[in-house]
Amino acid sequence: MFSQTDFVHMERALALARRGMYTTDPNPRVGCVLVKNGEVIGEGFTQPAGQDHAEIRALKDARSRGHDLRGATAYVTLEPCSHFGRTPPCVNALIEAQIALVVAAMEDPNPLVSGRGLAILRDAGIEVRCGLLANEAHELNIGFVSRMTRGRPWVRMKVAASLDGRTGLPSGVSQWITGEAARADGHAWRARASAILTGIGTVRGDDPRMTVRAVDTPRQPQRVLIDSQLDVPPEAQILAGAPTLIFCGNLDQRHTDRANALRDRGAEIVQLANPAGKVDLPAVLKVLGERNVNELHVEAGYKLNGSLLREGCVDELLVYLAPSLLGMDSMSMFSLAAPETLEDRVKLSFHAVDRIGDDLRILARFVAQPAPQTAPVPEPGGDPASQPVSK
Amino acid sequence: MFSQTDFVHMERALALARRGMYTTDPNPRVGCVLVKNGEVIGEGFTQPAGQDHAEIRALKDARSRGHDLRGATAYVTLEPCSHFGRTPPCVNALIEAQIALVVAAMEDPNPLVSGRGLAILRDAGIEVRCGLLANEAHELNIGFVSRMTRGRPWVRMKVAASLDGRTGLPSGVSQWITGEAARADGHAWRARASAILTGIGTVRGDDPRMTVRAVDTPRQPQRVLIDSQLDVPPEAQILAGAPTLIFCGNLDQRHTDRANALRDRGAEIVQLANPAGKVDLPAVLKVLGERNVNELHVEAGYKLNGSLLREGCVDELLVYLAPSLLGMDSMSMFSLAAPETLEDRVKLSFHAVDRIGDDLRILARFVAQPAPQTAPVPEPGGDPASQPVSK
Repeated sequence: MFSQTDFVHMERALALARRGMYTTDPNPRVGCVLVKNGEVIGEGFTQPAGQDHAEIRALKDARSRGHDLRGATAYVTLEPCSHFGRTPPCVNALIEAQIALVVAAMEDPNPLVSGRGLAILRDAGIEVRCGLLANEAHELNIGFVSRMTRGRPWVRMKVAASLDGRTGLPSGVSQWITGEAARADGHAWRARASAILTGIGTVRGDDPRMTVRAVDTPRQPQRVLIDSQLDVPPEAQILAGAPTLIFCGNLDQRHTDRANALRDRGAEIVQLANPAGKVDLPAVLKVLGERNVNELHVEAGYKLNGSLLREGCVDELLVYLAPSLLGMDSMSMFSLAAPETLEDRVKLSFHAVDRIGDDLRILARFVAQPAPQTAPVPEPGGDPASQPVSK
Repeated sequence: MFSQTDFVHMERALALARRGMYTTDPNPRVGCVLVKNGEVIGEGFTQPAGQDHAEIRALKDARSRGHDLRGATAYVTLEPCSHFGRTPPCVNALIEAQIALVVAAMEDPNPLVSGRGLAILRDAGIEVRCGLLANEAHELNIGFVSRMTRGRPWVRMKVAASLDGRTGLPSGVSQWITGEAARADGHAWRARASAILTGIGTVRGDDPRMTVRAVDTPRQPQRVLIDSQLDVPPEAQILAGAPTLIFCGNLDQRHTDRANALRDRGAEIVQLANPAGKVDLPAVLKVLGERNVNELHVEAGYKLNGSLLREGCVDELLVYLAPSLLGMDSMSMFSLAAPETLEDRVKLSFHAVDRIGDDLRILARFVAQPAPQTAPVPEPGGDPASQPVSK
């Protein structure tokens, strides 16, 4: 169905899409290549939200180079959009340009619009083929797909540990177990996330900024803090700069002053308690999904890590393993109880394993995914501020 | 200094050497390729101890195929031996065959004979070049090199653990954390070792046979048990078949019956106590070195693992990481105390990382090697039974 040439052009479209890794959020990362008579005549990738989608960019590129677009083929890494969001539908532009063939890597993951863009193109007499390098396209927008299909972000939990699985000395000292290259790599993963989540334990222990510094990015992810009792000191570094979103549990009279002090520091406080009075973590994911968080990057201590795992809130572990041993009384990765039997253990699969400097980077995914939440996915076309921004 | 053709022939010689992986022990694994006028005229690898070395095998092979050996080049993965061990010196055979050029991957690691074989060849008018693919040759005989240079085996400690660094449930149940492919791979590492060492804790918990079963091998490694108080039950599976070597600590009158019962089962008991009355582990390595153990494969529980690590008795960790989580109350890999500071942690380097089935295999080596022991290396030519068998 697809030729070698098709693969080459779609690979190029994926490479273009990756250029938007840190900038398209909350839109998906999309790339487009326009080909006519075997020649690439236009290229583009999605610009920051509210600006041109990949297809529009590629069409403008081809036109600016004086090409006649009629009869050209468009390679796109995601089904072109068919509705008015912050920008007009891309399908209209492709039809107007008299494109002859559209090759898409995957359909739009939003179940309410999936296939609609391709159908409109077909109705307009354009040939459409879909599914070329679909896995790669899916990986690129795994967070967007998660939000569209499950109403919650793709949650990636980062842990840096020694080979014997320890994240810090008994005193909590953990800077640094991994090397500089691994830490920079960790910042690249932060940069692609819509939001970075941590807990009050980490804030108290390390007072981290939770910003992206080791790689260049024009956009800082939203910082999210799980802090049941609003124990974060107003002078904590995580509160500096852009507003931090704090989720807390049951509060009482005593917390009013704390809350006011944090709001003075720009923080937004959302109370979201579970029956135990702690923060309702699955509900946090739902709220973050509603706030257009595609990929959620978690960097927390073993307690919050354990809670998130136990409550089915993690999709992927990003583990940096350092070539060292820290001993059995050092800190564990997750406060997780042993299963009754080996059959009941938490099962993962190693998705990717790479060497980063002297360390190992392991991307592991849960084999039995947490049951998808059936969060309502709003119809496109409504108020752009309150709906998932579809591509 | 070396041509592309030289590399090709030495790679072939290394491949031949690997065929002796399970059989040459305690001799090194050596391969030899004979080349004349660009044509491979003979090949060989070291046969079981007492039989032909690689060079003799290759010379016989070439002669049996009717080739004239005069002026040929010999590629050997280790310096040819120059002394009478169980077989006559290989240098004599190469000189008699009127070989013109000998290319060796590395010199003999025995400091007392190193370079001597090459010198004899040079004195006989044969051109000699050394050092081609030396690293590969060294890795192949890392245990032999260790025994020759340090008087102790190369100690490889195998551990199977979950991604969070746990080797079994709190109850001790650990069968199986890793998959079938990883377990078979572990048997291949057992098969190449001269001896397999375990502790009384593992024997009591799992009653393992500690034999090679998952891969074909004509030779079973010597089984070694660390058992301070001779607590091993006479019916333990580790005592079945070939005699097991048991190291114990301080014994008293009470142990006489136990010792006799174990000797009845064929076990050899060696008392080797440290000042604390426990087994003196560095002394065990020295004894095993004297007994021609090249590679020592350790499969033990976290206690003995920790003792071996603390006492500087481990050269390499062979860690199988399974894609699962077992929780923080499950069993740790090593009973090792946390260091005072991160700078003082046990430092390793990842030597090799591979996927084995669904698991990861990590070979990690200690950055600061334990100080080499200055065990006397006997002069070759003495009683073959009491000396390291040089190639």
